[in-house]
Amino acid sequence: MLLENNLLAERNRGFLEALNVYCLNLVSSPGSGKTTLLEQTIKLLKPKVGLAVIEGDQQSMNDADRIAAMEVPVVQVNTGKGCHLDAHMVSHAIKKMELIKDSILFIENVGNLVCPAMFDLGENKRVVVVSVTEGDDKAMKYPYMFESSHVCIINKIDLLPYVNFDVETAKKHALRINHRLEFFELSATSTQGMDAWVHWLTDQCR
Amino acid sequence: MLLENNLLAERNRGFLEALNVYCLNLVSSPGSGKTTLLEQTIKLLKPKVGLAVIEGDQQSMNDADRIAAMEVPVVQVNTGKGCHLDAHMVSHAIKKMELIKDSILFIENVGNLVCPAMFDLGENKRVVVVSVTEGDDKAMKYPYMFESSHVCIINKIDLLPYVNFDVETAKKHALRINHRLEFFELSATSTQGMDAWVHWLTDQCR
Repeated sequence: MLLENNLLAERNRGFLEALNVYCLNLVSSPGSGKTTLLEQTIKLLKPKVGLAVIEGDQQSMNDADRIAAMEVPVVQVNTGKGCHLDAHMVSHAIKKMELIKDSILFIENVGNLVCPAMFDLGENKRVVVVSVTEGDDKAMKYPYMFESSHVCIINKIDLLPYVNFDVETAKKHALRINHRLEFFELSATSTQGMDAWVHWLTDQCR
Repeated sequence: MLLENNLLAERNRGFLEALNVYCLNLVSSPGSGKTTLLEQTIKLLKPKVGLAVIEGDQQSMNDADRIAAMEVPVVQVNTGKGCHLDAHMVSHAIKKMELIKDSILFIENVGNLVCPAMFDLGENKRVVVVSVTEGDDKAMKYPYMFESSHVCIINKIDLLPYVNFDVETAKKHALRINHRLEFFELSATSTQGMDAWVHWLTDQCR
């Protein structure tokens, strides 16, 4: 089943490449702030580049409604009892939405720091989001997600004064698992640190 | 495979019943504060009743070390790529540790709001922990966990002034999925609300 997923993921990769669509797969625990991060990212990027979003959740249209309100094309995939998006779901979604050439496609995966690690969707880069309220030991406990990601966003840094979280410890643990990880420290709510992230995104799709 | 799990879960239930061990299965997203909640609960309960803990994580002995430091019997189960504890792992764990009669066994599941919902471990009650930093829409997006739980702990209420979380909205969503849910609002860090939870626990194992 994983082999089948991986084949279809490569097909998605080819499809997106043909349109020069740069694709990011956002993974995290539930409630790490992926949707708020997307909203803020869209606000800053939309004047510069075409955008589209695939939203994954077990249930509800909540997140898709939030993205649609920003007038960005969005498809909601409800996985039901499923714990992750797979390449098959993404394959349907990218054919359903009218992707623009030279754009960025964000996939917000189901909130789950475990299972989505094993499912390539055909993305260019995988971005793991951790929030400072979750503790700085997450990479040690859930290493596969950090191993398979390219970028690590440390979110909700506006809450650092109120929680027991050491940014350097969190990075150290994550780098021990994957020394190639690139980090962004930001708060999607206060917008602190958003510029560096958006700058990096703009660079990727040149 | 689920049928096999359910049969073994019933066997665990019988084993624990014979020793009058009251068993709770703690489930949540990663970083919702389950281990800190356990530490505080142990501090308050240990003088009154025998306790034991099974710790589930993909990797690391971190949580077991924290519990062992409180001189409570503990077994760490590392699931590797696995995304949940199953009845088979718990069956081994309860035979490995010397359970005391008339005690409470806490199982801290792998941090995952999705997959552990489907695996009965043989517990008396399932307790879903959500923290106020995760947003008040979790029950809508991950209904199966809330449907299968008996108790919902709303944790980290000391952070309410700094986040966008409405306790009544969170409860309303959860009750729509499962109208039998009992709630505790507390902060394991500030210890606010811990008394009601510990009182309830003491009542359960009478």
